[in-house]
Amino acid sequence: MSALDWLTSFRDRRINEGLRRELHPRSPSLDGLLDLASNDYLGLARHPEVIKAAQEAAQTWGTGATASRLVTGTTWLHAEFEAQLADFVGTEAALLFSSGYLANLSVISSLTDAQSLIISDTSNHASIVDACRLARGDVFVAPHKDVDSIRAALESATATAPHQPSHLLITDAVFSVDGDQAPLVALADVARTHNAVLVVDEAHSLGTMGDHGQGLTSLLGLQREPGVILTATLSKAFGSQGGVVLGTQATIDHLIDSARPFIFDTALSPMNVGAAQAALRLIKQHPELPEQARTNAGHLANLAESMGFDVCTPDAAVVSIVIDNPQDALAARDLCAAHGVRVGCFRPPSVPDSASRLRLTARADLGEPELARAAAALAAVAHAGLGV
Amino acid sequence: MSALDWLTSFRDRRINEGLRRELHPRSPSLDGLLDLASNDYLGLARHPEVIKAAQEAAQTWGTGATASRLVTGTTWLHAEFEAQLADFVGTEAALLFSSGYLANLSVISSLTDAQSLIISDTSNHASIVDACRLARGDVFVAPHKDVDSIRAALESATATAPHQPSHLLITDAVFSVDGDQAPLVALADVARTHNAVLVVDEAHSLGTMGDHGQGLTSLLGLQREPGVILTATLSKAFGSQGGVVLGTQATIDHLIDSARPFIFDTALSPMNVGAAQAALRLIKQHPELPEQARTNAGHLANLAESMGFDVCTPDAAVVSIVIDNPQDALAARDLCAAHGVRVGCFRPPSVPDSASRLRLTARADLGEPELARAAAALAAVAHAGLGV
Repeated sequence: MSALDWLTSFRDRRINEGLRRELHPRSPSLDGLLDLASNDYLGLARHPEVIKAAQEAAQTWGTGATASRLVTGTTWLHAEFEAQLADFVGTEAALLFSSGYLANLSVISSLTDAQSLIISDTSNHASIVDACRLARGDVFVAPHKDVDSIRAALESATATAPHQPSHLLITDAVFSVDGDQAPLVALADVARTHNAVLVVDEAHSLGTMGDHGQGLTSLLGLQREPGVILTATLSKAFGSQGGVVLGTQATIDHLIDSARPFIFDTALSPMNVGAAQAALRLIKQHPELPEQARTNAGHLANLAESMGFDVCTPDAAVVSIVIDNPQDALAARDLCAAHGVRVGCFRPPSVPDSASRLRLTARADLGEPELARAAAALAAVAHAGLGV
Repeated sequence: MSALDWLTSFRDRRINEGLRRELHPRSPSLDGLLDLASNDYLGLARHPEVIKAAQEAAQTWGTGATASRLVTGTTWLHAEFEAQLADFVGTEAALLFSSGYLANLSVISSLTDAQSLIISDTSNHASIVDACRLARGDVFVAPHKDVDSIRAALESATATAPHQPSHLLITDAVFSVDGDQAPLVALADVARTHNAVLVVDEAHSLGTMGDHGQGLTSLLGLQREPGVILTATLSKAFGSQGGVVLGTQATIDHLIDSARPFIFDTALSPMNVGAAQAALRLIKQHPELPEQARTNAGHLANLAESMGFDVCTPDAAVVSIVIDNPQDALAARDLCAAHGVRVGCFRPPSVPDSASRLRLTARADLGEPELARAAAALAAVAHAGLGV
């Protein structure tokens, strides 16, 4: 008898529920499929200039950062790119992490204590959910984009004796499952009124929203509000890997001083920094890329809607089609693959409700032929009676 | 007034306590200093074959994995390297993560529930401490390497009704601060007797311990014990970035199915996988590398001891010198730098007690000239009366 024998019954239960997850390794060409599943929104992960920059960084700096940021892990490349990112988004400073997951864990646990109320939208990403769990304060999971309930929670929390650290409100700028945007102006107003910190995760909006890809917070002019902090990833529109926090110099200094998942993690590899730096340069040179990604998302959503699917209006590059039953959603995904299109499939517990989704990501580099191929695949799903 | 005004007083308090942390960007050559601070134990982060493999992976696969492992993030390169790592360590299967931090978070939270007792050595790495906090079970922080207290805690926990998931015991194989090894044989015996899972973090021992670098658990023949799970990093001896979990196929399948920091994180970049794969090939071709790192650690420790320092006997490649006062430790670090040697400096709360440390890491590629340079730097510290 082993301490892990129970894994078998857990596995069998998941199989019976149609919720088993399995890895399916892919080839470099995604087995010839059209990619509408990845988060490579601008198509930069395979861009020659991004690849070249990563290769040069490997040559100059080596393949690993070799230690935490506080020991030998901070190179001039890290420092330079942090300054460039802050300048691009319009904050005082930026701090790189080895993943967006660790960026979120760091911000919430470092800026709250046991007396803080932490308010998190029910559709926030798993890394935010885990960050709330890791922090010591009470957590209020607010209904999706429900500003009134958030205001009420903050009012009742601030009615007791004020203290520091402040209460904290965290939201995705664009939600990962349905691709809809948060009511940021209203949230910033509520946070300001109640002297709470507002953390905005720009994972799906940095590089896809804003007139030059600067993200939603910056588009709205909120990035320099005192008390506003941004997090983001370099693994989506930037085609690389890693996370970043953007805010005032005092905020960044505080994270360096106290954020455990920053202090005790090996720094982001210089190769990943180099790749992301080249991606940023390309985004600055081609401000049309973010708009192309959004326009293509609109095309895909219109296509799906015209076929009778239940589709959310996309605010960035994510298009989400509700297909309630998880087995139906898997069948729809497989049917798309049979028609040459790779789409994502989100099932419980990866969805905020019990309804599964097909998830299509629009890339900036989709043209007419690709959109036609997507249309044919979705038509086959509709014809099979899945989700319509 | 801003919600973040309190950061100023927090900062001032840390400055007064001599505990302020600051980033100091380095050049590619580490500003000409001898590197005794990084965790690049085998000197592979700058090895031409490792760099070349990373560059080729960037060319073939792109600079980012583009999505989570369950969407488009699993490439054949990931799958191939996982099989190679499992074969090297001697487990059934392996699973890559974007960081060792996330590997630890995943294992503990996925294999325990609210009824589990989680036992963690007081000197375990911060990622393990955070992983225990993230899990839902009760946590018992055991005194350092105190097998009796661990046995007593498990005895009293298993005296109540048995349940599944089991209780879980987690330890570093080699502790990060003092470089001493855990009593793994005794811990495995206690875990087996009480039907508990034993998780061993091989961050500082994979690639530096074992007759061919296979790590401590594998050296002791415990890697295939039912109930034993290993975690490790690719950012130290492997010169790259990322984490890995090694265990039975059933354990790995369970993590794929349920570990949030695995499921919802972008996969490790193919470049980092390629670099680590080349490092593994080199370690297999040069089984003398791990022994050279350990031998050099012994030399450094003997040097320090002969000068009157309070030094721990190194079991792997980490050499730790106790210099109680944090300001003295910083002064010693700066004096080493003035003598051309970069060493690490650990201060509270990065140390398991209140005593600060100089932390020297022995690399496999240190020769006589480098050891002489280290000796001169340590002599200067001793002469200044710091730590002796």
